[in-house]
Amino acid sequence: MRCSVFIATSLDGFIARADGAIDWLSTVQVEGEDYGYAAFFATVDTLVVGRKTYDTVLGFGEWPWKGKRVVVLTHQTPTPRADETFFAGEPAALVAELSAEGAQRAYIDGGVVIQQFLAAGLVDDLTLSIVPILLGDGARLFGNSGRDVPLQLVGSRAFPSGLVQIDYSLAK
Amino acid sequence: MRCSVFIATSLDGFIARADGAIDWLSTVQVEGEDYGYAAFFATVDTLVVGRKTYDTVLGFGEWPWKGKRVVVLTHQTPTPRADETFFAGEPAALVAELSAEGAQRAYIDGGVVIQQFLAAGLVDDLTLSIVPILLGDGARLFGNSGRDVPLQLVGSRAFPSGLVQIDYSLAK
Repeated sequence: MRCSVFIATSLDGFIARADGAIDWLSTVQVEGEDYGYAAFFATVDTLVVGRKTYDTVLGFGEWPWKGKRVVVLTHQTPTPRADETFFAGEPAALVAELSAEGAQRAYIDGGVVIQQFLAAGLVDDLTLSIVPILLGDGARLFGNSGRDVPLQLVGSRAFPSGLVQIDYSLAK
Repeated sequence: MRCSVFIATSLDGFIARADGAIDWLSTVQVEGEDYGYAAFFATVDTLVVGRKTYDTVLGFGEWPWKGKRVVVLTHQTPTPRADETFFAGEPAALVAELSAEGAQRAYIDGGVVIQQFLAAGLVDDLTLSIVPILLGDGARLFGNSGRDVPLQLVGSRAFPSGLVQIDYSLAK
């Protein structure tokens, strides 16, 4: 099973302001441009998300992850809204379990979960959309993995909005 | 006078390891490829550097900044090696002084100095060379400017080594 990250950050590496706000993403919102999100989303059969991302989605009117297997990394066991499941173990154990059940590609989302998967060497590819702004403070995408993580450039593209998107694969 | 930044970072935003090491830059060192450095350097008449950058350069056999005016931001006044000068005031005062003396474009270098110039709204353009590696820890390029700094994308390019270079201009 491939584990994939697809996420936007400010140029200084934040995925949200300190209070969680993502208002600054609106600077690159353009009618009819989703920066490849739908095409990417169509390739994943599984989502692995953190509790914060899950809570945000619960606030939406509609469940946005229909047709995908969803696993929420959390030590709590809330009542599922759709058919999502909850997992409290190590990322490697989850990957082994999902792989054994036939999952082909998982979308790893949420700052903490991404850091856990990177630290465990479990991320296969990473698409980073760099928004042309410095925020100065907030929730950082990357944490301290405790070691160098070499990346292989796969491609990059610039958009008229000023967003630059870079694809990397990770050696495993 | 334009103030320009031209610097390499890891994908997670570090310009050096915690101990100052830049060994990881060697992953993108390619014979005959300077990623536009010489062309950029030819356009600046002035360098404004921090004390750490200056000390590093003093360790080189040869003075690498011949033919450029060099100002070192420091509260100390060491004996000059070439014709560099030392400045202990605010970036805005230095920019005013250099402008009055006819400087056209200054190369702002060194992590602390770059952060000071960004926080003061004095950077006109920024070329970032993103090295395909995560270091996890070290000296960060960007600090907390205390406010949003919007950037305008000027261009971007990918190199066979995996380095992605992005040019931004800053509204002033």
